[in-house]
Amino acid sequence: MRRRSELLFTLGDEKGPLHQRLYRRMRGLILDGSWPTGTRLPSSRALAEELGISRNTALHAIELLVADGWVRTRQGSAAFVSEQAPMPHPRLDERRPARPSPSPPVPFEMARQSANFFPRERWNALQVDLWSGADSAMLYGAGAEGWPALRRAIAAFVSGARGMSVDPDQVIVLSSTQAAIDLITRVLARSGDKVWVEDPGYPLAHQLFRTNGLTPVPVPMDAEGLRVASGMRAAPDARFAYVMPACHFPSGRSMSAARRRGLLAWARERQAWIIEDDWEWHARFDGQAVPPPLQSLSGGERVIYVQTFNRTIFPGLRLAFLIAPTMTIAETLIGTYEQMDGGPNAPLQATLARFLEEGFYAAHLRVTRAAYATRRDALLAALAELPPGFVPLPDRNGLHIVIGIPTELDDARVAAELRAAGIACMGIGEFALSYPAESGLVLGFAAFPPEELVGPAGRLIGVLRGIAAR
Amino acid sequence: MRRRSELLFTLGDEKGPLHQRLYRRMRGLILDGSWPTGTRLPSSRALAEELGISRNTALHAIELLVADGWVRTRQGSAAFVSEQAPMPHPRLDERRPARPSPSPPVPFEMARQSANFFPRERWNALQVDLWSGADSAMLYGAGAEGWPALRRAIAAFVSGARGMSVDPDQVIVLSSTQAAIDLITRVLARSGDKVWVEDPGYPLAHQLFRTNGLTPVPVPMDAEGLRVASGMRAAPDARFAYVMPACHFPSGRSMSAARRRGLLAWARERQAWIIEDDWEWHARFDGQAVPPPLQSLSGGERVIYVQTFNRTIFPGLRLAFLIAPTMTIAETLIGTYEQMDGGPNAPLQATLARFLEEGFYAAHLRVTRAAYATRRDALLAALAELPPGFVPLPDRNGLHIVIGIPTELDDARVAAELRAAGIACMGIGEFALSYPAESGLVLGFAAFPPEELVGPAGRLIGVLRGIAAR
Repeated sequence: MRRRSELLFTLGDEKGPLHQRLYRRMRGLILDGSWPTGTRLPSSRALAEELGISRNTALHAIELLVADGWVRTRQGSAAFVSEQAPMPHPRLDERRPARPSPSPPVPFEMARQSANFFPRERWNALQVDLWSGADSAMLYGAGAEGWPALRRAIAAFVSGARGMSVDPDQVIVLSSTQAAIDLITRVLARSGDKVWVEDPGYPLAHQLFRTNGLTPVPVPMDAEGLRVASGMRAAPDARFAYVMPACHFPSGRSMSAARRRGLLAWARERQAWIIEDDWEWHARFDGQAVPPPLQSLSGGERVIYVQTFNRTIFPGLRLAFLIAPTMTIAETLIGTYEQMDGGPNAPLQATLARFLEEGFYAAHLRVTRAAYATRRDALLAALAELPPGFVPLPDRNGLHIVIGIPTELDDARVAAELRAAGIACMGIGEFALSYPAESGLVLGFAAFPPEELVGPAGRLIGVLRGIAAR
Repeated sequence: MRRRSELLFTLGDEKGPLHQRLYRRMRGLILDGSWPTGTRLPSSRALAEELGISRNTALHAIELLVADGWVRTRQGSAAFVSEQAPMPHPRLDERRPARPSPSPPVPFEMARQSANFFPRERWNALQVDLWSGADSAMLYGAGAEGWPALRRAIAAFVSGARGMSVDPDQVIVLSSTQAAIDLITRVLARSGDKVWVEDPGYPLAHQLFRTNGLTPVPVPMDAEGLRVASGMRAAPDARFAYVMPACHFPSGRSMSAARRRGLLAWARERQAWIIEDDWEWHARFDGQAVPPPLQSLSGGERVIYVQTFNRTIFPGLRLAFLIAPTMTIAETLIGTYEQMDGGPNAPLQATLARFLEEGFYAAHLRVTRAAYATRRDALLAALAELPPGFVPLPDRNGLHIVIGIPTELDDARVAAELRAAGIACMGIGEFALSYPAESGLVLGFAAFPPEELVGPAGRLIGVLRGIAAR
């Protein structure tokens, strides 16, 4: 009886599809030790009866636990809390939207881009040139800190593109934003440290923080970005804040100047570290300049800056970088990085260095920015006939648009209904951690030429009309 | 007075140059909490007086502590135990020999190889072919587990080369052995777990274990390899053993069949994991076949196998792989790897897949093995006139030879004297952790054509004669 009320209480409170709410609640019972290793789970039939839900919903929730490794099934259908719990494994449903999968994207998947703009012949030519050269230094490796020419080229690039004043020795080359966050937290965090994360936010980063022994503290967002005052109430002693100030995922908002100042002041006062993920800094269509990075502002000595090429060149490239605020921090990070791994392929780094040095990257960004603007306009035009209450939200940056929905609807359910109709789409609420998120549908456009957007947009309108008519 | 006797006691006991012994002793005092954060170190003058050593030696030891981040200097020359202690930073002197630096090697640096054998035109042609193809799947990335064709090619390769029966889904592609050890320990270890390590052994791995919260337990080596019985006495409850059974670093020995069985039996009995680093499996010159990997033997389900291409193709390649003993373990590792990083550049993986599939790798191994045999013979011939008591040791594999020295000499001192004379050389004792290691000088030969070995070999003989005549 106690178990029943426990489950029911939380199921009544949360957002999202029933099976996910049940999944989360059961995962919580495993995590907090209420269901220790080896506990036999209630059967799907018992769960269905106890909670007044369908047996399929209960089965679905159990399957998610199995897929994530929390629960193991033994002979027949009995399910037990896994001996290997808690495995640091992202939820399947968190993983799907958050990380490019190795397949071409379908409309309107977000965080995807087209590989078609990538000037592969140019790249190939640079590679051939490098490989034909007499210099074999690149064969001996780059060192954990990165290929010297690439570190210099990155310092020069962020100076021009982001107005940053950086010494090449502050730059560390890695293969992804994840790798940068991993390195930063492993070197600078102590187990149990709290990290402010934007809510809603980027699930794979949250998962990584947990894996590395940190506790993500969800801090709500509003139109100005992360609510610093809420963070200071919830966890004034947090040791990190992980933010996307240029373009927040998934809302597409920029952090206001006041919030930037507030965040930097808190970090300085508390000696906290800010991890600045310059996500989609390049994707702005409102005519305004992208604000300068936190690291370049007063107080930036508490900021470690991260930017990826995987989002702008092609996802399989696997090259990104971080900029440490001081040489000392850079050296400390490099010392550990050298033990853990030691940096990506050296000829690849040398190729990217040339791609940057010779201006091809800047040209590529211009080409894609223009193309993305066209695609965005085409999608907005194709969505002109949305039913009442569904409206594209203004002041959003990034490679997706956000459609506001009528307040009585749950965006996760609407998105699930669209997905069931073959339209890849996420609800902002699906990225929420604790706080009631703003509602909205997120539609990625970057990977699709205008003509490929029209059909799915029409189908989307059809489904939304059906929902609005109910 | 207490401090003086503490320091003196250990300095009298240890091997190696004075400044390193002092450095290690002071580091020990910091590590065990005798000198907590903020402690002011004795001045170099005081240390010199207390210990009866030169002030330069004391200064040198303090400099090593500063370089590693254990100690910070403030205004003037006063040194304090760092607030950031203990930083996971390898000792400078550990780092140098253990990891290829991004520069061409000099005789007789070990763990180095020539990049000259690498068929760069062939590689370039494969790359061009891939980049010219219509298929852009590789641009969308490989997934954290690795490019499918490469996983298949690796499974096929280890089947032929190492007699292993592996499903491609057990293979995970990463950039280095370090990255593999990092992933394995982060997923399968709990903080405080003990790990058996071969003593002497590979310092960078030991450092990584410590960084990841494990405690390396040095287990002595003898002619048969790791002394399993000693490990079982020292730490029967260790959760890991990290071994190089094919070719131990730095002794060049292979683990005997009996020791292999013993190690596997211990792991099965204790549910421990063996990390099998198949270091220099390809470098055998004694005419005997390389023994099968531990993972392919009975009991191999406790073994995670690691092999690198960085040692056989070129150091800057940054591609390696691990083979999990089961699909479940592979999936668990991939789940975390996806959060931490997510795998190397996809086109690079596709290139290596072709290099393997089309037999170029096997051919490359044949070419280098023959060339290395020639170089090894040339070095041994050039060392025919070594002074009495200095003798190349038999039954050693790998890309270096080991020269036994008279028992009254300290190999670390001999090696230091050789280095002072411009001859890059290490003493086996310099890789020792706790136990008195066998003595010997380690001379790498793989990176140097015969004609480049003769001159340095002559200079080496000259220095050793001088030492022998004293």
